Amino acid sequence: MKKMNLVLLLWLFAATAHAQKLIGFTDAAAVKQVDWEKQFDAQLSAKNQDTWMQFLTSHPHHIGSPQGKINAEYMAGLFRSWGFQTEIAEYNVLFPTPKTRMLELLGSKPYKAKLEESALKEDKTSGQKAEQLPSYNAYSADGDVTAELVFVNRGIPADYEELERMGISVKGKIVLAKYGGSWRGIKPKVAAEHGAIGCIIYSDPEDDGYVQGDVYPEGAFRPKDGAQRGSVMDMPVYPGDPLTPGVGATKDAKRLNRSEAVTIMKIPVLPISYEDALPFLQSLKGPVVPAAWKGGLPLTYHAGPSTEKVHLKLQFNWDIKPLYNVIAKIPGSEFPDEWIIRGNHHDGWVNGAADPISGMVSEMDEAKSIGELVKKGLKLKRTLVYCAWDGEEPSLLGSTEWAEDHQEELRKKAVAYINTDGNSRGFIGAAGSHTLEPFFNQIADDVMDPQTGVSIKERKYASTLVNADKTARVKLAGNKNIKLSALGAGSDWSGFLQFLGIASMNLGFGGEGSGGEYHSIYDSYDHFIKFKDPGFKYGVALSKTAGRVMLRMANAEVLPMDVNSFYKTVAEYVTELKTLLENTRTETELENKMIQDKLFDLAGDPTKGFQSPKVKEVVPFLNFSELENAMMQLKVQTEEFQKLYGTGTQLPADKQKELNEILYKVERSLINEKGLPRRSWYKHQVYAPGYYTGYGVKTLPGIREAIEQRNWKEAQENIAIVSKTMEAYAAEVQKAAIIFVKKPF
Amino acid sequence: MKKMNLVLLLWLFAATAHAQKLIGFTDAAAVKQVDWEKQFDAQLSAKNQDTWMQFLTSHPHHIGSPQGKINAEYMAGLFRSWGFQTEIAEYNVLFPTPKTRMLELLGSKPYKAKLEESALKEDKTSGQKAEQLPSYNAYSADGDVTAELVFVNRGIPADYEELERMGISVKGKIVLAKYGGSWRGIKPKVAAEHGAIGCIIYSDPEDDGYVQGDVYPEGAFRPKDGAQRGSVMDMPVYPGDPLTPGVGATKDAKRLNRSEAVTIMKIPVLPISYEDALPFLQSLKGPVVPAAWKGGLPLTYHAGPSTEKVHLKLQFNWDIKPLYNVIAKIPGSEFPDEWIIRGNHHDGWVNGAADPISGMVSEMDEAKSIGELVKKGLKLKRTLVYCAWDGEEPSLLGSTEWAEDHQEELRKKAVAYINTDGNSRGFIGAAGSHTLEPFFNQIADDVMDPQTGVSIKERKYASTLVNADKTARVKLAGNKNIKLSALGAGSDWSGFLQFLGIASMNLGFGGEGSGGEYHSIYDSYDHFIKFKDPGFKYGVALSKTAGRVMLRMANAEVLPMDVNSFYKTVAEYVTELKTLLENTRTETELENKMIQDKLFDLAGDPTKGFQSPKVKEVVPFLNFSELENAMMQLKVQTEEFQKLYGTGTQLPADKQKELNEILYKVERSLINEKGLPRRSWYKHQVYAPGYYTGYGVKTLPGIREAIEQRNWKEAQENIAIVSKTMEAYAAEVQKAAIIFVKKPF
Repeated sequence: MKKMNLVLLLWLFAATAHAQKLIGFTDAAAVKQVDWEKQFDAQLSAKNQDTWMQFLTSHPHHIGSPQGKINAEYMAGLFRSWGFQTEIAEYNVLFPTPKTRMLELLGSKPYKAKLEESALKEDKTSGQKAEQLPSYNAYSADGDVTAELVFVNRGIPADYEELERMGISVKGKIVLAKYGGSWRGIKPKVAAEHGAIGCIIYSDPEDDGYVQGDVYPEGAFRPKDGAQRGSVMDMPVYPGDPLTPGVGATKDAKRLNRSEAVTIMKIPVLPISYEDALPFLQSLKGPVVPAAWKGGLPLTYHAGPSTEKVHLKLQFNWDIKPLYNVIAKIPGSEFPDEWIIRGNHHDGWVNGAADPISGMVSEMDEAKSIGELVKKGLKLKRTLVYCAWDGEEPSLLGSTEWAEDHQEELRKKAVAYINTDGNSRGFIGAAGSHTLEPFFNQIADDVMDPQTGVSIKERKYASTLVNADKTARVKLAGNKNIKLSALGAGSDWSGFLQFLGIASMNLGFGGEGSGGEYHSIYDSYDHFIKFKDPGFKYGVALSKTAGRVMLRMANAEVLPMDVNSFYKTVAEYVTELKTLLENTRTETELENKMIQDKLFDLAGDPTKGFQSPKVKEVVPFLNFSELENAMMQLKVQTEEFQKLYGTGTQLPADKQKELNEILYKVERSLINEKGLPRRSWYKHQVYAPGYYTGYGVKTLPGIREAIEQRNWKEAQENIAIVSKTMEAYAAEVQKAAIIFVKKPF
Repeated sequence: MKKMNLVLLLWLFAATAHAQKLIGFTDAAAVKQVDWEKQFDAQLSAKNQDTWMQFLTSHPHHIGSPQGKINAEYMAGLFRSWGFQTEIAEYNVLFPTPKTRMLELLGSKPYKAKLEESALKEDKTSGQKAEQLPSYNAYSADGDVTAELVFVNRGIPADYEELERMGISVKGKIVLAKYGGSWRGIKPKVAAEHGAIGCIIYSDPEDDGYVQGDVYPEGAFRPKDGAQRGSVMDMPVYPGDPLTPGVGATKDAKRLNRSEAVTIMKIPVLPISYEDALPFLQSLKGPVVPAAWKGGLPLTYHAGPSTEKVHLKLQFNWDIKPLYNVIAKIPGSEFPDEWIIRGNHHDGWVNGAADPISGMVSEMDEAKSIGELVKKGLKLKRTLVYCAWDGEEPSLLGSTEWAEDHQEELRKKAVAYINTDGNSRGFIGAAGSHTLEPFFNQIADDVMDPQTGVSIKERKYASTLVNADKTARVKLAGNKNIKLSALGAGSDWSGFLQFLGIASMNLGFGGEGSGGEYHSIYDSYDHFIKFKDPGFKYGVALSKTAGRVMLRMANAEVLPMDVNSFYKTVAEYVTELKTLLENTRTETELENKMIQDKLFDLAGDPTKGFQSPKVKEVVPFLNFSELENAMMQLKVQTEEFQKLYGTGTQLPADKQKELNEILYKVERSLINEKGLPRRSWYKHQVYAPGYYTGYGVKTLPGIREAIEQRNWKEAQENIAIVSKTMEAYAAEVQKAAIIFVKKPF
């Protein structure tokens, strides 16, 4: 007995010494939670991930394909077998596929683009020609155009300013743009705004071909005839089905006519390989392009126009196709109406191994292990919803339609949305709502990197510091905190975060698995296991990471939202905006003086006929005081609240529930129902994809984009809107703080 | 009579209103000087420059060639006809030419390098095969080596640190380096230091081939078989004849044995075209190179080594060759023993139109016009010495041997040395002793740009501001002063400035005439008039600029040296050095900690086996106080003197003479007879070519290079030497100031 007591004491001592603090948990609950997490880790299986990937990538599985439906049913079956309440949620969306694709260079050295990726004996699925979607850009316009060609670099607004200085117009021309530098849909959109009648986008070898590394199958990079498929829908206006903005694309939904759908591109657009691009680039005359525009092909890049004409003909089947989301739930034992949502898409452009199946199988492994824990007795306080989205590639179709369809319920119940997509060897990448930053950092301490044995946070820190230049290193040294990136567009969080105001995260490993397979027939199982994540070690690491997010959110006594972390991040954004305005003013003033002094004319080579930029409107001073006052209030409230937060686990159950509801709904107060200027679907006032960058995020977008577009009136209006938003957020935080001090009746 | 007075008054008024202040001239003398300059300008002739260039470039005119001698005699004849006392100064120098050149890739895909530039029908001298020097690197070692190949990027020390991190050694290997990033002679020198047994240097199309612009003859850039000749003598140790360091290579000079000449390269070196380089680059295995190492060829650049071996065989004729400098003088009427020296070389690697004849004909035009002014009655107070140097290309042979041969006389008499070399359309480039900066800026106000009609200073300012990034612009705006660059190596000033301490300048236009003809058979008259300076407008502009320097220096009452401008520049260098030391300390401390924390291991891709850098010695604090005190003294003395300078034109003639002698000899006080560490020939304590950069200047080289090489003891020793040097300079300035206050006896 005595001896037993000693053992017990020792055990208690050891348990206490090792007891890990978990944000939102009592110490006792944390000990149990960590123990469940160990079991969770032990049940993960690289072998299962491998097996599932082989099945899911065995045939092309784009939206509307036979394999796409087979995959949905296969996953639904698995989720059910793991104990999830599972359904397939079907929506019917506009999804164009090519009927005619033709691109030719006319004139003395005619060339007809092959538009065909070669089957490789080293890649067993690359020859599934009959099932593959050919290389094309979804939601391109139908068109049959013949015109001269102009090279527009990345095709972003700054490139057109440069073209204007060179005296080159794209009006009535076809433009040739390099992939990269913006989301691809920006390129035809900006081209059309400048009067172009067609757009060709090619993959320059400098970006993901032989300049980066040996090409497939010897190396991971894009071979000469590899082309990047992808959507060119105007997603920064709204994602999802073009015909049903704001509502679910159910069978009987009210649909727009195709002509009314503003997100469908106005001109024909076609992606091509660098082998196909070469003759077109060689046909260009006119000035040699600026240094930053040059790519990796062995020629002198000229801006154009070409003397020979280019003929582009594209026709599409504009069909409504069914899509199949898999939705699998484990209802919460205490708070079934608080949902933690997890998602990854399952559709690929072709066989889609890295994108998206690498993330999908990692999510599946996570779900399987959680299912087993539940069978072993783990009680999950909150409901977990595991989703496999269809139709992400064309424009986040599956997730957006589901979010729109369930918007009322989600507004009430959704605690957070955790997304993954492609995954490969390397370093953790994390983006999301900044209330979740300290919570995520605690998890990053607990997951070990499979190659080095240190935590994924330590490894990320090492990479950040080693790759920083020597000046930046001094500033970064010692700060291991992983700053979450802000979320723009790019995967399935948009419907949750930007339409509904649900705190969201996106997670994935990368940096050591780069290649040129993206959206081509070479994104295959064979490519993946050779170059992206051999042995699925990072697939398992991702399961550990995202799984902890799910498990801790499901069982925390107090939800792990840190509103002061949010405040600090927004305060940085506000400082950025003020600096942006100041710099814009100083630069404009100086540039105007330079124009008036004819310095651009004097600096230019007179034989090249460069044109001086035009004088710009003087940049006014804006009134930031309302926003500064709101931020001050937010600072005070959030600091006050975070002082109280630690004692939240001691609150009585009803108070905890009240507190948690405020905490997960606080992100909703960042939603303005009117949405952003010219795109009412995007309602979040802190995070949005850039109107002219696409994937690239714009934080405090209403103000930032107005300043960038020199729309001073709109900037001032949006300062007022954001100020009100921050006041509303602060008021919610204050309500949460009051819970701590309120005496019960 | 009354009317005449009015006219006279008006004329006087007008003259006074327009009277230009010239540094070192009384107002009255300035009026006359400006009038002579107008006549000088009017006599310049683009047509003459064109005619002379046609003659001088009609055949290859390298040192030792028949045309080289013909050119010297032709120019001597012209100088004589313009009234100059002219002689041809002959020296006899070691000049190797190739006997055997062989480079082949062995193994399964053998390739034998062509080593041949194609004749072009569009270029009338390109076919003079029998007279052309083939592509080679002068002062390469003889050798016959077979080994694996390693790609070393630019072949500078930092590249070998990177190779070490990749785990690649060049010991016993042949290295392949890209041209650029350093003077070419650094590449084999550093390769040999690391144990390489051979060196190939190629012209990557990214640097001066198709990446930059269309290739010759369509455009100005290097065609696929164009190769860059050039010397690889270890010029940062000493330039000039390897067998006669420090003395003139006269017929009976005492000569070293070839084996004793340390400046001859230790390993065989060969320059090749990018067409020839391609199979060698393709043979390389091993890791993909870092992004900054990549060039413009259509392949994945690997670091190596190659699996196949490379065979390089080179043999040279090690002949002593005569060289022919043309030396043409107009003795000064008042101060014949004060010499203003002007030089440009006349030898080319092949037909050498841009390099050097564009500068040579500009100098000739200048001399011709001055000769005519003298015939019209212009009295030149000081002696002008116009020189045409031979053998600059192999290693500044002609100018160095002449300077060494006449060192005693030059130490006494040389006021300044003004150099030019290649010239083309664009913007003025000016480098030199910083005492001459305000003087040069006054001239840059007075010469008009031929394309825009504003002053060359205004145009330079426009270019600087327009091409700066937006942040830098704000700092630069409004400051039109042309900051002289510091002189390293690269053309014929070294013997004057760095061996003898003669204030020097180098002048030339450029920036709109770039091309890839450098040191190839395509640097021809046909290329020049199409791409470099059609119509010789900038040839005439250069004559106007350098001619003003010569004329004003010849006739100034007080020489236009501004010692405070010198002080201010050196003070900036001292600040740079202190910052360099501080940054080195901070960076070393942080990097050592990163190494100890294994961050480099953690950040690296474990499948690639990168090696962590090694811990470096801690950077000590150095004692700068002696230098700071010397600088303070220099500040006080130079500020005091420049306050007095303006009244110098009022001093009696004998005082003026005394003052002028101090002013032109003040640069001599920057000479330390012991020279720099490990290279006693370089005696200037402020300006020297970098030991590991070659052309690239190192200012305050004794201190700066010791810090860069982490030789702390040597750094401290050189702080003492530079302090003494600055004290000596300040003492000379003080002597000059005393002249103003000294009462005559």
